[in-house]
Amino acid sequence: MELWFSECHAPDVKHSLRVNRHLYSGKSEYQQIDIFDTPEFGRVLALDGNVMLTERDEFIYDEMITHIPMSVHKNVKDILVIGAGDGGVVKELTRYDTVERIDLVEMDGQVIEACRTYLPENACKLDDSRVHIYFDNALRFIRRCTDEYDLIIVDSNDPFGPSEGYFTREFYGICYNALHEDGIMVNQQGSPFYKHDAEAMQRSHKRIVNTFPISRVYQAHIPTYAAGYWLFGFASKKYHPIEDFDEEHWKSLHLSTKYYTTKLHIGSFYLPAYLEKMLEEVEA
Amino acid sequence: MELWFSECHAPDVKHSLRVNRHLYSGKSEYQQIDIFDTPEFGRVLALDGNVMLTERDEFIYDEMITHIPMSVHKNVKDILVIGAGDGGVVKELTRYDTVERIDLVEMDGQVIEACRTYLPENACKLDDSRVHIYFDNALRFIRRCTDEYDLIIVDSNDPFGPSEGYFTREFYGICYNALHEDGIMVNQQGSPFYKHDAEAMQRSHKRIVNTFPISRVYQAHIPTYAAGYWLFGFASKKYHPIEDFDEEHWKSLHLSTKYYTTKLHIGSFYLPAYLEKMLEEVEA
Repeated sequence: MELWFSECHAPDVKHSLRVNRHLYSGKSEYQQIDIFDTPEFGRVLALDGNVMLTERDEFIYDEMITHIPMSVHKNVKDILVIGAGDGGVVKELTRYDTVERIDLVEMDGQVIEACRTYLPENACKLDDSRVHIYFDNALRFIRRCTDEYDLIIVDSNDPFGPSEGYFTREFYGICYNALHEDGIMVNQQGSPFYKHDAEAMQRSHKRIVNTFPISRVYQAHIPTYAAGYWLFGFASKKYHPIEDFDEEHWKSLHLSTKYYTTKLHIGSFYLPAYLEKMLEEVEA
Repeated sequence: MELWFSECHAPDVKHSLRVNRHLYSGKSEYQQIDIFDTPEFGRVLALDGNVMLTERDEFIYDEMITHIPMSVHKNVKDILVIGAGDGGVVKELTRYDTVERIDLVEMDGQVIEACRTYLPENACKLDDSRVHIYFDNALRFIRRCTDEYDLIIVDSNDPFGPSEGYFTREFYGICYNALHEDGIMVNQQGSPFYKHDAEAMQRSHKRIVNTFPISRVYQAHIPTYAAGYWLFGFASKKYHPIEDFDEEHWKSLHLSTKYYTTKLHIGSFYLPAYLEKMLEEVEA
């Protein structure tokens, strides 16, 4: 028997992974949750049929969304993580000794439960004493917060469906208010290659630019995401992602990584000409 | 009717493009040649079932394999291009006024003919008066050359099948001999993500390191190639790809590009930690 999981990265482009076994399938109040075991990518979490993470390439996403802001702001104590129920982002964050509190707001408790059971390597740090999990709507949760966090990581789904509210002007405004005066917000910013994704990325970048004084986009190669090419937004009240980056300080922490390096940190902000043009179009 | 073209990027990973029309199919002495029209990627050239280029993303490959060496060596007059029968690399090279001669060695004349007919935008500069096309085996061709070129671009297929000979120690040695004392060789170096590709990349990098005093690897995001993540090798007798790179000089040429920028030039050499480790393993 041949079992394949296929995802349309664009209406006319399909990415398929051979499947050993369909380990979990559940329908929560918010979405369809599936976990597969695959020969090439290990275990794969899909929400509503879209790959969220695989054991084989999650390190790229998780390292890039955490170490970039954590190496720019040297004294991050209080963090808010939105989405990220799989625990991969939390796992990276708990490696820093400065961190005192990680509030994780995930609306779908069923995702966390499935990941605890089937992706224990990702979820292993959800029980760290600094981690507080809130099953809540992130907009409602953050609206109550003012001047409370050093870092907010928006590790949401794509801006279609249940996570749409995390890409609005209002949402970025309440994130801004919830941050300290030197706070940073990082979000997954989609892919610029296929038209539908590119338009969503431009919309969301425009809203962030209008909210934060510093707003830059950086990139990573993530094989299982659309076009293998993924972006993150770095939005900040004070720190510039390159000018305020202290390479030596981060190296002194001796954190071993599989993707992130201090050089790649800088290179990840050097974008292709076509993408620079797209960003400039909405920055004007 | 639904018509899809599928390519296995790894034994358990498939990348598929919806096809409007199969425009050309021919079997040459060397390989199976197909050209499709697709809604997302425009026309697609496949050799032996592997995507070589698409109209939509060829600019990434062609710009990165040409502008990186052309911006480091400021006075390139004589160039040898191996493979590249589609003409995309030649098209970028003819934009430089310093260039006096481009020798294109392609063993398969049928590829050139098919591209002239079905990919005229790529092939349009094959008739430039500076371009000389040789239908020959590249090893035999270069063996006759000593101290003749400023730049050699090895735009070959993958190191399996008909192009295998372009990834050997002997081949890099005759390229070295064919270059002037400040010459540069750039080659497509595959992808480091899937095991089979990664091993081939390491083998070939080791051989280049043993042949040239300067040898560095750089990267680009190419959606239709394996894992969307592609590498190039920069091998050189004298010039370092970053230390000898004169950003202002290249900008003064006013060449417009869709992918390459002088900043991205630098960033493309800042590699992920896992890839640096793979390269160091064979550099020792």
